[in-house]
Amino acid sequence: MDRSEPTAADVGEFALIDAVTSHFVQGPHVELGPGDDAAIVRITDGRVVASTDLLVEGVHFRRDWSTAVDIGRKAAAQNLVDIVAMGARPTALLVGLAMPPDLPVAWATELADGLSRECALVGASVVGGDLVRGRAITIAVTALGELDGRAPVTRDGACAGDVVAVCGRLGWSAAGLAVLSRGFRSPRVLVDAHRVPTPPYAAGLAAASADVTSMCDVSDGLVADVGHLATASGVHVDLDGAALLPDRELAELAPALGVDPMSWVLGGGEDHALVATFPSDAAVRKAGEGWRTIGRVLAGTAAVTVDGRIPKAGTGHDHFT
Amino acid sequence: MDRSEPTAADVGEFALIDAVTSHFVQGPHVELGPGDDAAIVRITDGRVVASTDLLVEGVHFRRDWSTAVDIGRKAAAQNLVDIVAMGARPTALLVGLAMPPDLPVAWATELADGLSRECALVGASVVGGDLVRGRAITIAVTALGELDGRAPVTRDGACAGDVVAVCGRLGWSAAGLAVLSRGFRSPRVLVDAHRVPTPPYAAGLAAASADVTSMCDVSDGLVADVGHLATASGVHVDLDGAALLPDRELAELAPALGVDPMSWVLGGGEDHALVATFPSDAAVRKAGEGWRTIGRVLAGTAAVTVDGRIPKAGTGHDHFT
Repeated sequence: MDRSEPTAADVGEFALIDAVTSHFVQGPHVELGPGDDAAIVRITDGRVVASTDLLVEGVHFRRDWSTAVDIGRKAAAQNLVDIVAMGARPTALLVGLAMPPDLPVAWATELADGLSRECALVGASVVGGDLVRGRAITIAVTALGELDGRAPVTRDGACAGDVVAVCGRLGWSAAGLAVLSRGFRSPRVLVDAHRVPTPPYAAGLAAASADVTSMCDVSDGLVADVGHLATASGVHVDLDGAALLPDRELAELAPALGVDPMSWVLGGGEDHALVATFPSDAAVRKAGEGWRTIGRVLAGTAAVTVDGRIPKAGTGHDHFT
Repeated sequence: MDRSEPTAADVGEFALIDAVTSHFVQGPHVELGPGDDAAIVRITDGRVVASTDLLVEGVHFRRDWSTAVDIGRKAAAQNLVDIVAMGARPTALLVGLAMPPDLPVAWATELADGLSRECALVGASVVGGDLVRGRAITIAVTALGELDGRAPVTRDGACAGDVVAVCGRLGWSAAGLAVLSRGFRSPRVLVDAHRVPTPPYAAGLAAASADVTSMCDVSDGLVADVGHLATASGVHVDLDGAALLPDRELAELAPALGVDPMSWVLGGGEDHALVATFPSDAAVRKAGEGWRTIGRVLAGTAAVTVDGRIPKAGTGHDHFT
């Protein structure tokens, strides 16, 4: 390590907290930001929407694959999109960071910069957090949001006769991970998609203002996450294979890696696309640009098929087995 | 390991989530609990109070010193008291858990039981979370609360002429840690105080309804945390040594360990006592049972003294240096 680069151990906890929090701009909805026992955020419609995610080094990210800014953006994005998937507008993040004492201060401040940049895309603020010692870098993000008077969009509202639509990329992050795992750094566009997802925040909020009946983000893989909608709603979803053909970037890469690109489309998470059900194709169009129909909701119980058949790909990722 | 005891790897992520969340009773203020992209909690006064803390195995707890139930209670307690220290009533927790695949399922469900039991003391609910793989057990807790129309109690309201008061134990957790660190298991009452803090939740809320001018919980050590009030308020706090004599349990133990028990009283955190300032001794009495005067607020800047002198003990804990 470059001895001229100060570490957490060099500067100590309180200087480190100051360096990190200086990156966090507080929006007008923040009544009290970092520095007290707790933060205070304005919530005007009587309900707060809240979600939390952990990212562990070596499991969810690698420092040799992603910059600290990338990791900060990804940590923020995957939490902000959980709020949007409820039809809510993200307003605040709280961020816990466990880090080894020999980690450069610059890494932590760049992480803060990434968190802050992603928050700026949706008008949210990093309002508080915690900084502790740990062997593996662990980032715990909690996102808060508000519904602005709308009903929440839960997973259990899909009805037989609805159409299924998706907004955002499918399989790009998984393809980028496959590239990095084999020691390559290109195609750059796929590697970048793995490093920093680009969830369709605005399209999610547009759907919430339209006639969406259920919604979630694609974090476990399309088939697994559509399965969550199907299970919660007690319906059968049949996806249309022709509407799910891999994007050109995936189709061109797949032969070189000996992979069926449909496994990325159906089984890859981490792009944080949004998948939702609507009462009609007209309602999908009303939700606006980016939403495209990919299937139908049928009567039945908790099943997902593609063109009527149970897909091989896409049982989803289990963290433990 | 007892091979009959199922691990996270044996049962998989989704069964593990079901086993854990079955411990979480949802209060009437919870509009949507675990199982969707985010939880929804009722907030009636236009502001949500939020705080987050991380606990890392080997840094904040040891499995050979504490049961999973103890660790769950401690993780909840240290976050719930942050909400109370703002003068707010805790309503909800979100809990992220990183754990190795060979961890017994029973450990995770006992942790959930501990979280749930501590929440029950204040009427809060565990409304959501995340479960991921990690080498070290890491527990990330975010607490939410509401002010019920009261003004928040921040750290910056102490004025010259105020009195300083404390509620709760001082130094017990530090003494218990000293006992455990030397390989002993008794005095049991001190070891238990380290394993599970007993923050004075009700007294904190009583102070918020009285005339408290500033408040925080004692997590870094009394002198360090009073220092946070002094710095934020721009005042000098002089503590009264005679009001801070170690409890009998500490005084009896200290000679055996060759420790000055005042170092536990002034420097020990993790009991999560509450320290606050009030306009008068009468206001301290009005805050109710448990609050006792320990010092005075003087004009000056960001200084803490004991009987007029800078204390040796109690510069507080730095996670990194």
